[in-house]
Amino acid sequence: MKAITKTKSIETKNIVYVGRSIDGYIAGKKGELDWLDIIPGSDKIDMGYVGMMAEIDALVMGRVTFEVVLNFGIEWPYKKPVFVLSNSVTEIPDPLKEKVFLTNGSPQKVIDQLHTLGYHKLYIDGGVTVQQFLEADLIDEMTLTTIPIVLGGGTFLFGELSQSLAFEHVESKVFLEQIVQDKYRRKRTV
Amino acid sequence: MKAITKTKSIETKNIVYVGRSIDGYIAGKKGELDWLDIIPGSDKIDMGYVGMMAEIDALVMGRVTFEVVLNFGIEWPYKKPVFVLSNSVTEIPDPLKEKVFLTNGSPQKVIDQLHTLGYHKLYIDGGVTVQQFLEADLIDEMTLTTIPIVLGGGTFLFGELSQSLAFEHVESKVFLEQIVQDKYRRKRTV
Repeated sequence: MKAITKTKSIETKNIVYVGRSIDGYIAGKKGELDWLDIIPGSDKIDMGYVGMMAEIDALVMGRVTFEVVLNFGIEWPYKKPVFVLSNSVTEIPDPLKEKVFLTNGSPQKVIDQLHTLGYHKLYIDGGVTVQQFLEADLIDEMTLTTIPIVLGGGTFLFGELSQSLAFEHVESKVFLEQIVQDKYRRKRTV
Repeated sequence: MKAITKTKSIETKNIVYVGRSIDGYIAGKKGELDWLDIIPGSDKIDMGYVGMMAEIDALVMGRVTFEVVLNFGIEWPYKKPVFVLSNSVTEIPDPLKEKVFLTNGSPQKVIDQLHTLGYHKLYIDGGVTVQQFLEADLIDEMTLTTIPIVLGGGTFLFGELSQSLAFEHVESKVFLEQIVQDKYRRKRTV
């Protein structure tokens, strides 16, 4: 009998998991996020965030999102390492030095670097960052949670891309009869 | 015995029924609409359009949408009267003179005029027109059919509004396992 050795390649994945308004904004005109909780009870249920956070190895976010999280005035909410994409931030606040790391460069360069460090499943967060990763076709999965409000302005989740990107619908869920969550997977071969 | 006379008020309703990309566009950068049919078989099933068209009394659309429909090069597709909002169109092509009518003025003025004419349930179509009606808070119901593609640019369904508008989620359906259709109703009292 011959021994069969299976080589299992490491699964890599870049995911987006974000709440948005019906009209596609992730923050209001003045950066407001209160509308995310407009449906009573939505802050008390898990809509998949816990499982998603357990699945990923690290987060990648832009400077703006990083500063928004810092300004929440709460304890640092992430247990997984957070990589902040920035050319302007040069210093991470002391208490976060073992949790937050600065990085920069193209989305592909950042991904390569994180893979080398052993982080393969990545949560990509923040409007500008998501747009840059979409432009580089580096988003594999998106979970979009839609709050039933037309915000009428603010920070748009998506932006201009040089090419359109086909996705496959994976599933849709409705929470509290009001919040629709759609999961999509990038469809690279047609 | 006393005769009881019930006065039934006429239900009025302005609805939006539109296909959009995941990122919220209703037409591509060059006006492309082919991506609306990206899911095989989607042109062969009714996703609710027939029932919606049966329910409404008339359509209201902007000049751009009117010209897009004219340029389809197909037979005029609407059996209900179509009111085209325009200050620049002055003449309706002869074969359409009993089906298409020109109007202009504020959304409220247009609605009032159509109610007077006996048209109470209205299908409001086209990006600019929908935006103007949303700005005037005159949209009561929206059925948004999402094609699983990130288009990366084009004609946006929604626009800047001076105030946000809360909606109530009515139902979500998935067609062909790929196309998500969400129905929302304006929530005017909180």
